[in-house]
Amino acid sequence: MTVGTLVLLRHGQSEWNEKNLFTGWVDVPLSATGEQEARRGGQLLGEAGLLPDVLHTSLLRRAIATAQIALDVCDRHWIPVRRDWRLNERHYGALQGKDKKQTMEEYGEEQFQIWRRSYDTPPPPIDPDDEYAQTGDPRYADLGDALPRTECLKDVLERLLPYWTEAVVPDLRAGRTVLVAAHGNSLRAVVKHLDGVDDETIAGLNIPTGIPLRYDLEADGDDLRPTNPGGTYLDPDAAKDAIAAVANQGR
Amino acid sequence: MTVGTLVLLRHGQSEWNEKNLFTGWVDVPLSATGEQEARRGGQLLGEAGLLPDVLHTSLLRRAIATAQIALDVCDRHWIPVRRDWRLNERHYGALQGKDKKQTMEEYGEEQFQIWRRSYDTPPPPIDPDDEYAQTGDPRYADLGDALPRTECLKDVLERLLPYWTEAVVPDLRAGRTVLVAAHGNSLRAVVKHLDGVDDETIAGLNIPTGIPLRYDLEADGDDLRPTNPGGTYLDPDAAKDAIAAVANQGR
Repeated sequence: MTVGTLVLLRHGQSEWNEKNLFTGWVDVPLSATGEQEARRGGQLLGEAGLLPDVLHTSLLRRAIATAQIALDVCDRHWIPVRRDWRLNERHYGALQGKDKKQTMEEYGEEQFQIWRRSYDTPPPPIDPDDEYAQTGDPRYADLGDALPRTECLKDVLERLLPYWTEAVVPDLRAGRTVLVAAHGNSLRAVVKHLDGVDDETIAGLNIPTGIPLRYDLEADGDDLRPTNPGGTYLDPDAAKDAIAAVANQGR
Repeated sequence: MTVGTLVLLRHGQSEWNEKNLFTGWVDVPLSATGEQEARRGGQLLGEAGLLPDVLHTSLLRRAIATAQIALDVCDRHWIPVRRDWRLNERHYGALQGKDKKQTMEEYGEEQFQIWRRSYDTPPPPIDPDDEYAQTGDPRYADLGDALPRTECLKDVLERLLPYWTEAVVPDLRAGRTVLVAAHGNSLRAVVKHLDGVDDETIAGLNIPTGIPLRYDLEADGDDLRPTNPGGTYLDPDAAKDAIAAVANQGR
């Protein structure tokens, strides 16, 4: 029996995606293209009649704005919202603010791909005095020394899971349609957990931007299991094209 | 001793303000001017270093968007938010969707001013089948038969107070800077309560749009009392001009 419906929505192009810079926890706004992607996401939700009852998002404006725009388009701008750093993008460490192409040329494609895609090898940590570190940012004041200085996907999954269990799962068990508007890597962590993707396979899994990905969930003991493993994109053709395009990022 | 700081922010021009229609609970978007007012409100917050820790807003997009735009400008887009129908604009009953000038000509200035300004005389109730009633709107599903069909300011104060006491006051007592982004009449209700404005005087009290109004609050038994009665506008000159302009609405 289905208990709840999860909708994952990855934010669209940000100003730094456009410039091909590593972003991570740097709080850059959506580009005009990214805003358009969010509107399209909202249209898809509306056309599918897949109307969220509650929103969970990160503390970064590209996810917050994506959710707000998409929900406004499908007339659900008024639903309850929770924001948490545990849904943030992966912290890209010392790479934050660096040009992707330049980084690949400087360190070689192998190292570049390890930093981008390895499950458990984080990039070098960012210097706390770096302009792109979040030292002193009031939104992370409660984290203290736990403020990440770099993360691999494994780290993201570990810091995301407590929020998943304590905040998202109860909404799903209550039978709600739950929108999680977040980032490439925090959503990959969710998908890895839900679908039981192994550490190697997850390296090649991309979630396209702006296309809602629906999971119908059923109870499985203390956890939840998708009745549609891998989820269902609301626009499967666009998703296929977008996955191919993301795979070429940084080339 | 000050316990918390309250910031009231009235949404700017909506598309129906622009067209001079009674709006009430009809969920119309901000106009471009209204978005600009929200940005200005955020600039004033940033310049004053008056940075909200938490946001309370209504279920109407003109208030939700005002808050989101203003908070984005002062880099507080990530703070926790609560939305509640009890902060909605006054329900304008059968006047919702009607032209203000036409209404005044049809019913006369005296009746018009009673409906606009009387503390305890609501306009005629809206027909549940009217296109501008909220019958069947999912955001009000929990209200059932308590869904308002018209309201006077007294009604607004009565339905707002439980939320004020249960949701806003605890945030203020915790020492937070609390932004309430809402509407002309729900904010007048807050001001009436805080400043103890009498039923006659409140009729002449206008809160300008887009200019944050700050109240520093101290504990007074179970309630809170402003140490700066009447509050302090972050741009007093603009507030004075705007109050005069609002008083001429519908003329």
